[in-house]
Amino acid sequence: MRFFSDNAARVSPQVLAALIEADQVDTAYDGDRWSARLDEAFSDLFGTPVDALWVTTGTAANCLALAALCPPFGGVLCHEEAHVETDEGGAPEFYTHGAKLMTIPGDGAKITPDALRARLGGIRNDVHQVQPRALTITNATEYGRVYDPDEVAALGSLCREHGLRFHVDGARFANAVATLGCHPGDLTWRAGVDALSFGFVKNGGMMAEALIFFDESLAADTLRRRKRAGHLLSKGRYLAAQLLAILEGDLWLDNARAANAAAAIIAMAAGARCLHPVEANEIFLSVTAEEAASLRAQGFDFYDWGTGAARFVTSWHHDAQDVQPLADAIAAL
Amino acid sequence: MRFFSDNAARVSPQVLAALIEADQVDTAYDGDRWSARLDEAFSDLFGTPVDALWVTTGTAANCLALAALCPPFGGVLCHEEAHVETDEGGAPEFYTHGAKLMTIPGDGAKITPDALRARLGGIRNDVHQVQPRALTITNATEYGRVYDPDEVAALGSLCREHGLRFHVDGARFANAVATLGCHPGDLTWRAGVDALSFGFVKNGGMMAEALIFFDESLAADTLRRRKRAGHLLSKGRYLAAQLLAILEGDLWLDNARAANAAAAIIAMAAGARCLHPVEANEIFLSVTAEEAASLRAQGFDFYDWGTGAARFVTSWHHDAQDVQPLADAIAAL
Amino acid sequence: MRFFSDNAARVSPQVLAALIEADQVDTAYDGDRWSARLDEAFSDLFGTPVDALWVTTGTAANCLALAALCPPFGGVLCHEEAHVETDEGGAPEFYTHGAKLMTIPGDGAKITPDALRARLGGIRNDVHQVQPRALTITNATEYGRVYDPDEVAALGSLCREHGLRFHVDGARFANAVATLGCHPGDLTWRAGVDALSFGFVKNGGMMAEALIFFDESLAADTLRRRKRAGHLLSKGRYLAAQLLAILEGDLWLDNARAANAAAAIIAMAAGARCLHPVEANEIFLSVTAEEAASLRAQGFDFYDWGTGAARFVTSWHHDAQDVQPLADAIAAL
Amino acid sequence: MRFFSDNAARVSPQVLAALIEADQVDTAYDGDRWSARLDEAFSDLFGTPVDALWVTTGTAANCLALAALCPPFGGVLCHEEAHVETDEGGAPEFYTHGAKLMTIPGDGAKITPDALRARLGGIRNDVHQVQPRALTITNATEYGRVYDPDEVAALGSLCREHGLRFHVDGARFANAVATLGCHPGDLTWRAGVDALSFGFVKNGGMMAEALIFFDESLAADTLRRRKRAGHLLSKGRYLAAQLLAILEGDLWLDNARAANAAAAIIAMAAGARCLHPVEANEIFLSVTAEEAASLRAQGFDFYDWGTGAARFVTSWHHDAQDVQPLADAIAAL
Repeated sequence: MRFFSDNAARVSPQVLAALIEADQVDTAYDGDRWSARLDEAFSDLFGTPVDALWVTTGTAANCLALAALCPPFGGVLCHEEAHVETDEGGAPEFYTHGAKLMTIPGDGAKITPDALRARLGGIRNDVHQVQPRALTITNATEYGRVYDPDEVAALGSLCREHGLRFHVDGARFANAVATLGCHPGDLTWRAGVDALSFGFVKNGGMMAEALIFFDESLAADTLRRRKRAGHLLSKGRYLAAQLLAILEGDLWLDNARAANAAAAIIAMAAGARCLHPVEANEIFLSVTAEEAASLRAQGFDFYDWGTGAARFVTSWHHDAQDVQPLADAIAAL
Repeated sequence: MRFFSDNAARVSPQVLAALIEADQVDTAYDGDRWSARLDEAFSDLFGTPVDALWVTTGTAANCLALAALCPPFGGVLCHEEAHVETDEGGAPEFYTHGAKLMTIPGDGAKITPDALRARLGGIRNDVHQVQPRALTITNATEYGRVYDPDEVAALGSLCREHGLRFHVDGARFANAVATLGCHPGDLTWRAGVDALSFGFVKNGGMMAEALIFFDESLAADTLRRRKRAGHLLSKGRYLAAQLLAILEGDLWLDNARAANAAAAIIAMAAGARCLHPVEANEIFLSVTAEEAASLRAQGFDFYDWGTGAARFVTSWHHDAQDVQPLADAIAAL
Repeated sequence: MRFFSDNAARVSPQVLAALIEADQVDTAYDGDRWSARLDEAFSDLFGTPVDALWVTTGTAANCLALAALCPPFGGVLCHEEAHVETDEGGAPEFYTHGAKLMTIPGDGAKITPDALRARLGGIRNDVHQVQPRALTITNATEYGRVYDPDEVAALGSLCREHGLRFHVDGARFANAVATLGCHPGDLTWRAGVDALSFGFVKNGGMMAEALIFFDESLAADTLRRRKRAGHLLSKGRYLAAQLLAILEGDLWLDNARAANAAAAIIAMAAGARCLHPVEANEIFLSVTAEEAASLRAQGFDFYDWGTGAARFVTSWHHDAQDVQPLADAIAAL
Repeated sequence: MRFFSDNAARVSPQVLAALIEADQVDTAYDGDRWSARLDEAFSDLFGTPVDALWVTTGTAANCLALAALCPPFGGVLCHEEAHVETDEGGAPEFYTHGAKLMTIPGDGAKITPDALRARLGGIRNDVHQVQPRALTITNATEYGRVYDPDEVAALGSLCREHGLRFHVDGARFANAVATLGCHPGDLTWRAGVDALSFGFVKNGGMMAEALIFFDESLAADTLRRRKRAGHLLSKGRYLAAQLLAILEGDLWLDNARAANAAAAIIAMAAGARCLHPVEANEIFLSVTAEEAASLRAQGFDFYDWGTGAARFVTSWHHDAQDVQPLADAIAAL
């Protein structure tokens, strides 16, 4: 009955099994057979050659990507409520050596082409103002909204036009793909995306995330940056094995679908209380303090979201039976 | 028959069990019961109040410590063959924002008080020269030598005298303690050490290391630096549980003793071939290219160490039976 | 008839004389008699012991101050139109190693205590959000407004309450003091200010600015940071002599008063066109594109300020006769 | 009778005249006619198109160049007694965001191709070791030696072979050219040099140095880095005018020749006391403490250089008459 965050959920059984399998050999760093298969496995998934690196956190994936895409003296355009702006403790600035996050407003933590154009239009092209070099969006967003392939492509097109590199924070990329039913390539390289943080931890993984470079020329330096950031684990095989286990048989999609379906049940019950369309596995509801207290008294855990609102997040292991009590309780408020 | 490195070995069974135990709950970041016990568990071990943080690599532990001990414009004194200088891909410079590693020579990768004094004596105290602010030593060293408590204390005393903070890279700290038979406090806080990177990965762990602050005032900012470096795992409980599993019942000492004992068997067989006294679990031997080839033909894997030398490292799971064939083969060269 | 910026004006004759005087000796770095007098000269001016360092730009002064007041993982609160945020090319992020500028809105580029409180109230105190460590205000502001001593003190008091250090960007500090007629200490240390960038270049200097530390404990490390940033000139005497020449006989106040008086003449003529109260030497006017073109056709140079507005800045060497033609032309629009 | 350093000498009269000339206009940053002429003036001098930027210190010139040539995770090869390694307070690490200086030994602070090859040969090409990306040499060196065009070209050729960019710290470049009598292009772009810090301050300037990019693609980003480092002076015309005044009529060569000639007189008198061949304007002599004291008692000022040695530096304004007393005194020791 805990709906704090998918980032805390226990792991898929296949992940535990993969760790035990990876324990049979003794290879160091990324010299193991699982790590060696990552490029191919993700290239197959995306339908284009990619370079895939394991890291242990989404923050590291995001920030290694941004460091590859933006020089220290450049700027990274992002939503004003993007995770990189609000919840990564200054990690983007650390990894990029002080690049400036340049924020853009928008409903549901989504950036529209118009909003991007307006932001770009307000920047003088001189040495006194930081010049943007990259755009990062989150898909699904921090408010559980998704960008569809056309929306991503429209932003990608603007990026090309303005000389910006393009990154997607896909902490919940699987949830977006599951919702949209599209090919993962449609949300990424076919839409002009250079790099993707492909989240696994929120989707059944233990501590392995994938950083995907569609522009493969960026990978070599990033291998050095990963080491330099202390993220080259000596027993990296335990990370690679997690990723492969979740890719195997499209477990990543099954997990995301399960979380999304659970969220949909809650959203249906919540109706007009929903502050944002529920398009992935996060539900933001309008609830009074008394209503929140009532839900907690019934054993449901979740975060308050400012005043008069609450966030519920479903996870890969939630099924209809798990969330029905919450849905009922919300409906009964 | 692989003696490449202890950093690649499989993990202690207790570690796998701990992961499964940690999988029963869903708590985020370091809000779990295992993480909450770390300060107390390590305080008990060291016999003094400490702050203990989990991280996933020794590089991260070392560099977070150095960032806490040295400002960006300062210098970190270290051995010229220290891991931070030669094998961390510039991570110390990344984490410290460009502090300068100031190297010191010495046999067996050990720094003597005289060598430290000589290095300090060569630095002009003006703004043109970087001023050292910290000393870091590795114990056991990169050549498998150990500093005993008196040696550490002599360096600690010099640090106090010269206003230097003192860090120990203890990637193989357990091996040093096992060899010396001393209390872990004797090699650290009682000798003036401010921070210790306490290695678990080379000693049966999967991807959890402990960063120990004897000067607890340094911990709060380091929690922020850890997040900023992308090292705050959302499912941190799987790291904390590893550390506790290895502390439990002194498994860390048992593991280290096993590795040391295995090394001793090889060292005995190698006799005068040993390039350094074997005081932990690393053996550096003088072998010709032909001899190395012969050993490899017999199925033994290891690293060449420059020309005419080879490095063998034993691990926690090696027993006498495992290493006897190698010992015999070396004796027969 | 150029009103682009006081930062381009020619220098006071006393500055040229000082350079010639400084040319008589050959001393390196800050080992000259002018540099040696700075601490005392500024301590006398402020009525409290201070440390004073010369640098060549306001950007360097601001950023060295911020680096002294805020750690890399901290945040610096500033107005959203502050020079450090909009016009320093990412220098604050460079000098602070990636500290985050956290912006606050407000009329006339002024920060009110309420606005500061509101911003602080929106920051969660956890490791995921960057925590502010310092506040910087600009006095006179980027829109030519001034903070009076009570306003500065109110912010200073909030800083103390919230553990924030307090910096003033005084690129036009002299203009603020001239307007307010107060003691320079009233706008700084008596109001809780830790460090001041005291501008000389916009007030008759050539390339010398003063960085003043009221908290003298911050100076020693800043001397190292100045060197590290390549700002320790080997012939620093030519900078120190400039500063002393402008301090001498209160030339700094005379210069600022002249600029302010010239601005007042223009403001009087502009009347309701003034977009902000003219409290220093900058005038922002509402003018149509046609009106701006007309003024330019009459030989007046100035910057457009977005659409429908223009900025005029007066300088130390402007007298009534210099600006009357512009005042007349504006009145005649 | 002061022979401490050429970096402290008074300035050429033409420099003062240039400042007065530059005082006649009011243009900001590098929007003046002097700054606009720099590219052409230096292109003419070098016989190839270059980009030329003014900065105020050699440290800034060196470090902006290194930041352009080496990524944060790379290494910069330099002599172990290079100014960037020993006397810039960590500025290279600051500007490059932590690139590692990788030192090379050699007589007279010169790097030989063999020494460079040996250093390169000792670096493993993996992510654990920092990979060198650039070489920097000082010409004339910190010991007053010069590299001739063939020597520079041999290093340049090695750089090409190993994918290294090539920088020359030319704090005393004029002295080297004056000694060799070669074309300045022979010591730079024709020999494979990408960027040059061309010193003016030690050669009659006040606080203006030139950063020359032979690879013009590096200039645009460096303009941003210069601003970001606080080195874009608002009254930059006073710097540009200095540079042009010293270029005018080959004053830079006249000044350097005068300093070199003065040094030659002292060297002749010193004979076998010279610790290094005197090839520019620095003389390093073997003198006992008593001899040094005797010279000082006679009114000569200079630096001790470790034990039993002293450094004397001549400047642009020294003529035979100025240095003869010192020459005589040394001869009489």
